[in-house]
Amino acid sequence: MATISTFTIPPPSDRPAMAPETVQARFEAVRAFSNYLVEPLEIEDYGLQSMPEASPAKWHLAHTTWFFETFVLKHHAPGYEPVHPVFAYLFNSYYNGVGPQFLRPHRGFLSRPTVREVHEYRAQVDEAMRSLLARSEEPSLLALIDLGLHHEQQHQELLLTDLKHGLSLNPLFPVYRPARDAGNNRETGMNWVSFEEGLHEIGHDSAAFSYDNEGPRHKAYLHPFALADRLVTNAEYMAFMDDGGYERPDHWLSEGFVTMQEQGWTAPLYWHWIDGAWQHFTLAGLQPVDPHAPVCHISHFEADAYANWAGHRLPTEFEWEVAARGIPIAGNFVEEGHFHPVPAGEPDGRLRQLFGDAWEWTRSAYLPYPGYRAEPGALGEYNGKFMSNQMVLRGGSCATSVSHIRASYRNFFPSAARWQFTGIRLAKDL
Amino acid sequence: MATISTFTIPPPSDRPAMAPETVQARFEAVRAFSNYLVEPLEIEDYGLQSMPEASPAKWHLAHTTWFFETFVLKHHAPGYEPVHPVFAYLFNSYYNGVGPQFLRPHRGFLSRPTVREVHEYRAQVDEAMRSLLARSEEPSLLALIDLGLHHEQQHQELLLTDLKHGLSLNPLFPVYRPARDAGNNRETGMNWVSFEEGLHEIGHDSAAFSYDNEGPRHKAYLHPFALADRLVTNAEYMAFMDDGGYERPDHWLSEGFVTMQEQGWTAPLYWHWIDGAWQHFTLAGLQPVDPHAPVCHISHFEADAYANWAGHRLPTEFEWEVAARGIPIAGNFVEEGHFHPVPAGEPDGRLRQLFGDAWEWTRSAYLPYPGYRAEPGALGEYNGKFMSNQMVLRGGSCATSVSHIRASYRNFFPSAARWQFTGIRLAKDL
Amino acid sequence: MATISTFTIPPPSDRPAMAPETVQARFEAVRAFSNYLVEPLEIEDYGLQSMPEASPAKWHLAHTTWFFETFVLKHHAPGYEPVHPVFAYLFNSYYNGVGPQFLRPHRGFLSRPTVREVHEYRAQVDEAMRSLLARSEEPSLLALIDLGLHHEQQHQELLLTDLKHGLSLNPLFPVYRPARDAGNNRETGMNWVSFEEGLHEIGHDSAAFSYDNEGPRHKAYLHPFALADRLVTNAEYMAFMDDGGYERPDHWLSEGFVTMQEQGWTAPLYWHWIDGAWQHFTLAGLQPVDPHAPVCHISHFEADAYANWAGHRLPTEFEWEVAARGIPIAGNFVEEGHFHPVPAGEPDGRLRQLFGDAWEWTRSAYLPYPGYRAEPGALGEYNGKFMSNQMVLRGGSCATSVSHIRASYRNFFPSAARWQFTGIRLAKDL
Amino acid sequence: MATISTFTIPPPSDRPAMAPETVQARFEAVRAFSNYLVEPLEIEDYGLQSMPEASPAKWHLAHTTWFFETFVLKHHAPGYEPVHPVFAYLFNSYYNGVGPQFLRPHRGFLSRPTVREVHEYRAQVDEAMRSLLARSEEPSLLALIDLGLHHEQQHQELLLTDLKHGLSLNPLFPVYRPARDAGNNRETGMNWVSFEEGLHEIGHDSAAFSYDNEGPRHKAYLHPFALADRLVTNAEYMAFMDDGGYERPDHWLSEGFVTMQEQGWTAPLYWHWIDGAWQHFTLAGLQPVDPHAPVCHISHFEADAYANWAGHRLPTEFEWEVAARGIPIAGNFVEEGHFHPVPAGEPDGRLRQLFGDAWEWTRSAYLPYPGYRAEPGALGEYNGKFMSNQMVLRGGSCATSVSHIRASYRNFFPSAARWQFTGIRLAKDL
Repeated sequence: MATISTFTIPPPSDRPAMAPETVQARFEAVRAFSNYLVEPLEIEDYGLQSMPEASPAKWHLAHTTWFFETFVLKHHAPGYEPVHPVFAYLFNSYYNGVGPQFLRPHRGFLSRPTVREVHEYRAQVDEAMRSLLARSEEPSLLALIDLGLHHEQQHQELLLTDLKHGLSLNPLFPVYRPARDAGNNRETGMNWVSFEEGLHEIGHDSAAFSYDNEGPRHKAYLHPFALADRLVTNAEYMAFMDDGGYERPDHWLSEGFVTMQEQGWTAPLYWHWIDGAWQHFTLAGLQPVDPHAPVCHISHFEADAYANWAGHRLPTEFEWEVAARGIPIAGNFVEEGHFHPVPAGEPDGRLRQLFGDAWEWTRSAYLPYPGYRAEPGALGEYNGKFMSNQMVLRGGSCATSVSHIRASYRNFFPSAARWQFTGIRLAKDL
Repeated sequence: MATISTFTIPPPSDRPAMAPETVQARFEAVRAFSNYLVEPLEIEDYGLQSMPEASPAKWHLAHTTWFFETFVLKHHAPGYEPVHPVFAYLFNSYYNGVGPQFLRPHRGFLSRPTVREVHEYRAQVDEAMRSLLARSEEPSLLALIDLGLHHEQQHQELLLTDLKHGLSLNPLFPVYRPARDAGNNRETGMNWVSFEEGLHEIGHDSAAFSYDNEGPRHKAYLHPFALADRLVTNAEYMAFMDDGGYERPDHWLSEGFVTMQEQGWTAPLYWHWIDGAWQHFTLAGLQPVDPHAPVCHISHFEADAYANWAGHRLPTEFEWEVAARGIPIAGNFVEEGHFHPVPAGEPDGRLRQLFGDAWEWTRSAYLPYPGYRAEPGALGEYNGKFMSNQMVLRGGSCATSVSHIRASYRNFFPSAARWQFTGIRLAKDL
Repeated sequence: MATISTFTIPPPSDRPAMAPETVQARFEAVRAFSNYLVEPLEIEDYGLQSMPEASPAKWHLAHTTWFFETFVLKHHAPGYEPVHPVFAYLFNSYYNGVGPQFLRPHRGFLSRPTVREVHEYRAQVDEAMRSLLARSEEPSLLALIDLGLHHEQQHQELLLTDLKHGLSLNPLFPVYRPARDAGNNRETGMNWVSFEEGLHEIGHDSAAFSYDNEGPRHKAYLHPFALADRLVTNAEYMAFMDDGGYERPDHWLSEGFVTMQEQGWTAPLYWHWIDGAWQHFTLAGLQPVDPHAPVCHISHFEADAYANWAGHRLPTEFEWEVAARGIPIAGNFVEEGHFHPVPAGEPDGRLRQLFGDAWEWTRSAYLPYPGYRAEPGALGEYNGKFMSNQMVLRGGSCATSVSHIRASYRNFFPSAARWQFTGIRLAKDL
Repeated sequence: MATISTFTIPPPSDRPAMAPETVQARFEAVRAFSNYLVEPLEIEDYGLQSMPEASPAKWHLAHTTWFFETFVLKHHAPGYEPVHPVFAYLFNSYYNGVGPQFLRPHRGFLSRPTVREVHEYRAQVDEAMRSLLARSEEPSLLALIDLGLHHEQQHQELLLTDLKHGLSLNPLFPVYRPARDAGNNRETGMNWVSFEEGLHEIGHDSAAFSYDNEGPRHKAYLHPFALADRLVTNAEYMAFMDDGGYERPDHWLSEGFVTMQEQGWTAPLYWHWIDGAWQHFTLAGLQPVDPHAPVCHISHFEADAYANWAGHRLPTEFEWEVAARGIPIAGNFVEEGHFHPVPAGEPDGRLRQLFGDAWEWTRSAYLPYPGYRAEPGALGEYNGKFMSNQMVLRGGSCATSVSHIRASYRNFFPSAARWQFTGIRLAKDL
């Protein structure tokens, strides 16, 4: 099994000045990292689709390849012949502009192409891409390829969270990779970091890569607020549970309480009460719940109820972004190999765990920024058409690549979603 | 049948200085208006519940009465005995703080109490309220009663829209009240009204009545924008339909397109293609669609798709509120007796149809304002717990009472809801 | 309120010799009995449809009238004009040969025509029928009218059971008609009545009226068996419940156990555990469960599980018919005014409660007899097209008219149905 | 790939005289045949579960092994240690008497144990079984093992039909095994074979193996009837389709017509209209529909509608059994390697295609024979608890082993099931 250090992915450089050799290096690194992620899988694991919202690992490998074939090679590599005529249909996720799509909930029924054939597909496309990259200096083409790499990094995270969901339903509790010691299993206090009111610029502001939904940059007025300097821990969340958190409607959104009852939630996803203690399924198999690690695998509904119970609230995405600006992007990312949030370090007056560990639910709905318009064409479907009934999450997680996240990065999921590494940072008005 | 002029409801006065005799007058007028609204109903119509989201007219009559019994009389009228012990359960809508609730989708199964008994219930509570009002000067009690009256006015609108939905499923197309001539059936152009960018105060700002979700008043920065000076017409919407609006996914939110296909939408709700022309079910029975009247009974998904198709967008709720500030509250309200939107008058450089006619979908999700916290106790459940996966609508409709609406008023419904009088005002960035 | 004795319906005479005056008398009596049944109803009760399988009382009144209009008057009364053109659509139950049908689950949404209008519809059709009857001697026409009367009698039973279901969901537990004392509240033993094996003729055998599904008469071989001489009592059924009947899968059909768990059954339909004792909703309101009365409102699944638990089985429909042959048709029918099963009388060596009280679930699927073919045309849809996934019940109930039942009568419902008056008679092999 | 001739499975001998060496030979042959069936599979194919009613091939391999472990080794092999403690839970299908069961619709989510591990599981259990067989002469134990082998043969058929369903959803139309030429592609007439009325003995009658649902042997009276001497062909079925078979309700059971519309059926399962002709997915991939081969993959509803349309009916299971008695068991079974029905040979005055090719829907519901009682204990759950809302099929199919079928064999599926190899033989009254 390869070591993680093999996969140091160069950070994305500035778009206007994006050098071909940087994109080439990123291409090799990102594509190789997908292979690293599936290395521990049995062939049988690759096909798991345990709910319509999740996709098999094999499908992620093929879809990210399809992206390069469809948006890059077909248009920019003269004479390129697609590897298989049906793949355009099988591995199109949701791009109506490209053509019809195989039924999403049926992805797990595609036993063919086999894992070997999908790896061959990847290899063939990689070869064609390498040829193209060797002769490309056109900035817009390089930017398009860079988009494909960010797209693949997004799917790397989904590959892990979808796989985790699939494995979790197996009473054998399979181990993806054994646990690494986080070395920091201590209680640590929570402090507030304050921010003054004022008018702020929000949204992506550099020439470097970003998704279209992070712009346009615009002004927003924020009232004075404070953020907790670390994520809510499992111990703190268990106090909410012990106080009837899942039984009384007082602190819940109405839709949240109904959803919780219908789905039978009594604890975060993956938690099992075994012999008088909480354990949870992780990518390292069944493990005791660490009281000092951040709670994760909770829905927006649970995050909101917890915050209400605690007498506080969730941050808005703008508050989060203003607080994150200028903070170095470091933390417990996928490259650390924990594949799970770990306890915060000691307080130092600054915001801890802002990047990595767990995506932080905000109280902001996922909506377009002022002046936003989706690009015309199929690539315009990437983000804009999902701006409906989803909530924004910020900061990345233990399954995100460090080279993929930004202060302006907007992730989004429905309020009831629990299978991502999602946690809670408290906020309050001042 | 009483004439409409009987029901001139005094506008709500300022809360701090609310005079007892004003509340008394409002009490009589609002309660009588409910009776006016049900006057044309057959006893059989009172029990109609054609979907879980709608309630029978009889239930609305009882629930608005229960509100006074539960929140006013039980606490403020010493020795008051509830009319029937089971009513507290049957007519509680969603107040967990008060007690359990009869199943919402089963409200139509309550053939008892009968219509006569519900009217007796109303009469008994009215008597007790009159006694209480006669001896009350305490401002907080008067404000609570005023809240109950606003609550009843909200339900008067729901009574009409729920009734319309119930009658619409009957192939006999029953007439609630015959149509009145709007006298203005002419095409009229659409112009843009521009607004500069800047920092604005948003939210309710006077001592007069408002719901808690309209505050706290706070600052928001708006970029330059323009609003259409009237609502989108049926003729304009038919152009969208003719251009494949309901067939091609290009302009739709992804969730909207899926919902549209699953529900089989091909036109606004209540539209029927009969002998080569569109007719629609109205509270005056089946009628030809007037090309110059505002389109209504469309979902947020359809409004958003239309705006995209037209090359524009929906306004935010803040843009709407800033534009509406200072504009007199006048228009086609329920008191006009049209029970349907009517064509706009001639352009005059100002925003037409801003109040009345049709609720205007905004692109804003229904979320708490900065600093908002729901009040403790059952009345805190009125608004706060619904701030999830709904969109804000502004301006009132032809089923709203003129004395019930404000520039800061925030109505909210899920993106797929179509049975309210909901329409479209376009906006654009400048 | 009329007394029951008003409604002595003459029994159907032999078809070949059916006298016009007999049919006339039956017509008046059956039509009047429908009016008798709805006499205690509030107007609000007429529209109740509490599940798709049930229909509003008003609909039953109209549909049975539609039957005469559609199958008799339109074809046999020259110049007859239907009362309303839309009624042909609204009140067609399932006769594709006649035309399309209004959606069954939406029948409760038909607040119009009103109750008064439906009674007028009945009166108009009755007048036309009386004219026709006055001049008709054609046996086939008289037989057709007689079919319409049997059809109405079937719906009279459904009117009661559907109404009971609708009222049962109301926490006010409305009383349809107050209880009458059955005067026989004593425990009585259960004995077996034996039958020898042999070849038997099965099916309707006289010239008198029967449905087509009761024939052709044919031979069937029966092995030796015995039948319990009375229905299973509530006390006996409670012993099954106390022995974990609703918890352990041992005695259940697999589909039955799954259904029971999905539906949350823990007792017969309408039972409520109140203050440490079982009560049940009856047409006389909430009443204590009488331990000596027959258990009813149980599904075939429950009947089968009970029989297995008791070490016995349900009878086949052929065993039941052979046992019933020659036994006088007498018992607790709807004319008794109990509207509920009553305890059996003292044993007398013969089968008690064979007719009336509760329909008896058999272990026979509802299938065509050898040689059966549905008639061509719409009336052929009456029975044949339902011979799929239903079980046969025999003997009539406390909601059946005595003049409607026969030894060869085959009722049928799906295995999970519980809202009819359905009970258990045990059988065993010898 | 092994040739089919390797797998000549000795027929089951008489139970009382069942020789140990016969059971040993059968054990080896049946177990090896399972391996033969999965030989063409990719590892990815083993996990396919495309609907709750179907199971992955891997699960079938494990479950049939679990059966020997659970019912034979645990009770009869002293000191036997189960291979894995969790397998008792994972691979229990529906035996409540043994313990709880892993959720059936989730079987496809069990990526572990892997295919290799399941084959190891089989090998370990085989070893233990061989040891036990080497020292066992007890007839009841040998009979129990023989039951396990019949059980495995049943699952071999399901493995094929479940696999076919899974592969069919893949637009790549994977080939399980290439088609073999049936060498008989000619039209052949259909004749009637008549049977006199009389009293017959029905049910299993020899000392050889049978399932408990085939007895007790009992008497039944049959009226005169005739059976078609071959199965209905695709050409004949297409005539029904061309005559509006799937559009008009006339010939359908009511539940069948509704089901057909809800499921969107317009042809047999697996049929595709491609470039103006019907093709269908087979285990040899996409193939043209052979007009002379028997129609298959139709539901009971379709079979019944076809028979009505043709002016005939389906046989009862008793008619079928009486007709089949004494006819040699020969035909197109799984050992032929067609994995699909083939055209009938030339008429010879006798019933053709009675065994093999396609299971024949009867008009008989799956109910217990007179005197039947399920055995106590878990093995009693094998058949009895499914006698509810299913229809009987007779004769075996192209996926059945010749050594598994009998004239008295009763297969059963719900009326809507289409994924088995199910066809139509017409019957008529004389």
